[in-house]
Amino acid sequence: IALSAERDLDRLLEKIVKEARGFTGADAGTLYLVEGESLKCVVVQNDSLKRWGRLDLPPVPLSPEYVSAYVALTGKVVNIPDVYSSRDFNFEGPRRYDALTGYRTKSMLVVPMRDHRSRTIGVLQLINALSPEGEVVPFGKEYEELVLSLASQAAVAIDNARLISDLERTLESFIEALASTIDARDPYTAGHSYRVTQYTLAMAELDGASPREMKVYEYAALLHDYGKIGVRDAVLLKPGKLDPEEYEEVMKHVVYTQEILSKIYFPEELREVPDIAGSHQEKYDGSGYPRGLKDDEIPRGARIMCVADVFDALTSERPYRPRMPIRQALSVIREGAGSHFDPEMVELFFKLPLSRVLGIMAHGRGEPPVDLGKLSEVTLGDLYEALTKGERSPEEMLGLSGGEV
Amino acid sequence: IALSAERDLDRLLEKIVKEARGFTGADAGTLYLVEGESLKCVVVQNDSLKRWGRLDLPPVPLSPEYVSAYVALTGKVVNIPDVYSSRDFNFEGPRRYDALTGYRTKSMLVVPMRDHRSRTIGVLQLINALSPEGEVVPFGKEYEELVLSLASQAAVAIDNARLISDLERTLESFIEALASTIDARDPYTAGHSYRVTQYTLAMAELDGASPREMKVYEYAALLHDYGKIGVRDAVLLKPGKLDPEEYEEVMKHVVYTQEILSKIYFPEELREVPDIAGSHQEKYDGSGYPRGLKDDEIPRGARIMCVADVFDALTSERPYRPRMPIRQALSVIREGAGSHFDPEMVELFFKLPLSRVLGIMAHGRGEPPVDLGKLSEVTLGDLYEALTKGERSPEEMLGLSGGEV
Repeated sequence: IALSAERDLDRLLEKIVKEARGFTGADAGTLYLVEGESLKCVVVQNDSLKRWGRLDLPPVPLSPEYVSAYVALTGKVVNIPDVYSSRDFNFEGPRRYDALTGYRTKSMLVVPMRDHRSRTIGVLQLINALSPEGEVVPFGKEYEELVLSLASQAAVAIDNARLISDLERTLESFIEALASTIDARDPYTAGHSYRVTQYTLAMAELDGASPREMKVYEYAALLHDYGKIGVRDAVLLKPGKLDPEEYEEVMKHVVYTQEILSKIYFPEELREVPDIAGSHQEKYDGSGYPRGLKDDEIPRGARIMCVADVFDALTSERPYRPRMPIRQALSVIREGAGSHFDPEMVELFFKLPLSRVLGIMAHGRGEPPVDLGKLSEVTLGDLYEALTKGERSPEEMLGLSGGEV
Repeated sequence: IALSAERDLDRLLEKIVKEARGFTGADAGTLYLVEGESLKCVVVQNDSLKRWGRLDLPPVPLSPEYVSAYVALTGKVVNIPDVYSSRDFNFEGPRRYDALTGYRTKSMLVVPMRDHRSRTIGVLQLINALSPEGEVVPFGKEYEELVLSLASQAAVAIDNARLISDLERTLESFIEALASTIDARDPYTAGHSYRVTQYTLAMAELDGASPREMKVYEYAALLHDYGKIGVRDAVLLKPGKLDPEEYEEVMKHVVYTQEILSKIYFPEELREVPDIAGSHQEKYDGSGYPRGLKDDEIPRGARIMCVADVFDALTSERPYRPRMPIRQALSVIREGAGSHFDPEMVELFFKLPLSRVLGIMAHGRGEPPVDLGKLSEVTLGDLYEALTKGERSPEEMLGLSGGEV
């Protein structure tokens, strides 16, 4: 949702400049935002210079000699009939711009963008008001208030977009901190939630998931083991194999995950998070836990995550077994297609670039074992085929050490 | 921050109606929002009827016979020179309003409020355009686009405010779920974080904390024991007294709290949360944990929370001792003023209404022990004075059972 908010904001700002130009008849308009010690140009519109395409104007230093900076610093409106005959400000910039493009910057209306706390966060600059006959005239004083109002709408919109992305970032870092803390209770699962999330997102990307779905999958994957917070150390951290009763308790973490997450308020866009997180132990053939859902009764995100979760568990060390070589883990995944896993998701998984998978596997475990750059073209499926056909040794193919694959 | 965003939104909507009226010369204006199956009036402005104060208009059913509902349903602009001679819509509402107030509703411009996804979320209705001579005239067609644009700014602002409050609610319910899950690991601490938060907020309110500070204190208090997620069951849940090494480990939860929270991204407004949460075991005289801060080196919020935390611990049962009676807990707090606690915060604590304290104490423990209504005037200080002076027995004073105080 952060992405879409950003895009909406850009569109909104373009629209606001366009409207301000429409009401005042301005040929051109620019919107600057205060960034550190300068004004950064975020919207440039110029009807006469359309053939120039997108023109990026250089940042303006926050010094009162420049008209836009003066407006940003003082919060005052400046209305200039002809900049070439004005001595109030340094107009080197517009003159250079004019020399470059053949434009003639003449009348100018510059208003501050004040947010709801009356802080000036930017400047809206309108250039060359056109009379109905198409001649450049000064901006009417009666337009100042209207443009000021549009500029303050823009300021509020920007403020909101910033707050929204701030809150999203807080929420996300909260979820990440939580996931890594839960993983860290057990040295054998350190980094697990992160890796499952990365595999899931890589698969979802190939699956054509929307930005909203990516966000939902990300949160669901980060939180899929959240319920472990309710499992006792004695069981969760037991060094040996679990007895049936203990196994039952560990499995219950899925139920806890869904129970706890269901009590959390999620915005509409994220409402599927608890259900996906709580369904990652369901199996495609209906033999899974806790509800025995099958096929597309299982949320799509959970069917993706299920492959990711098992692959990461297999390729991670456990107290009672070493880490499984990739080739063997791939066999397990392939053989589980149609029973444990949705065959479609297994296909998806085998389409992942090997380099990406190895990069994720290495998370929290030091450097990746091979030069990932060389592998960018090879998918898991390619690797698996080479391994099963035995035409080339994987070591030969990838330059990997034998233990790695 | 939710509160301030709400207030800002109200102000913004009032401002948008005012501006739309300013540009069009409208005598009155109303802003409706779609809520379920009707339009709810959120802004009413009428210059001629100022003496009526705030007029609440009844909701309009979402049926196309009413002009505002028609605009909400179709997204079309409606411009009516005189509603009394229009047969296109049911104007019973305005006629009743006019009969009641002596107003004469005549010209009307109604535009949809479209958000950035082009959904109509409300309607802006302008009434009685005034000529420079003060006569009611029809709304000029040239204003339609401008008002439409203002209305869509309003729609975007509302959308953003909703998203912001949605995200805040998500964040908050996350933190609450987390706090209650951590408390739930130990039956003796169930509800602890919630109660500490409530005591802290009650004190902060008396302390004149701003809405932003209240939010910071709320999150810090809910999260003050977050670090317990890193303490082993064997120590955290030990039934008997802890040996020095185990005690050390339990105390370390404060360090974990700060460590984990410091990795989380907080928006600027909430940036003090980790520091306050991580300082709740500091003591006023510098003998606390982990940094040995003293006096106002300890964040104000932590000095408040410290009293709340100890009071809740004392009045909660522990495996090795029963719950302490309030009178004794109050003595401990009073005696700790200047050493363990900031005397100012102890004063604050003793100013809390007894009814509120008993209400919080009862959280997660069934009904409060007395009729809280009767106690609304009595503070903890009053109680303590009565108890120490021994003039009246507390039972007599409050009708409490002996064990309770």
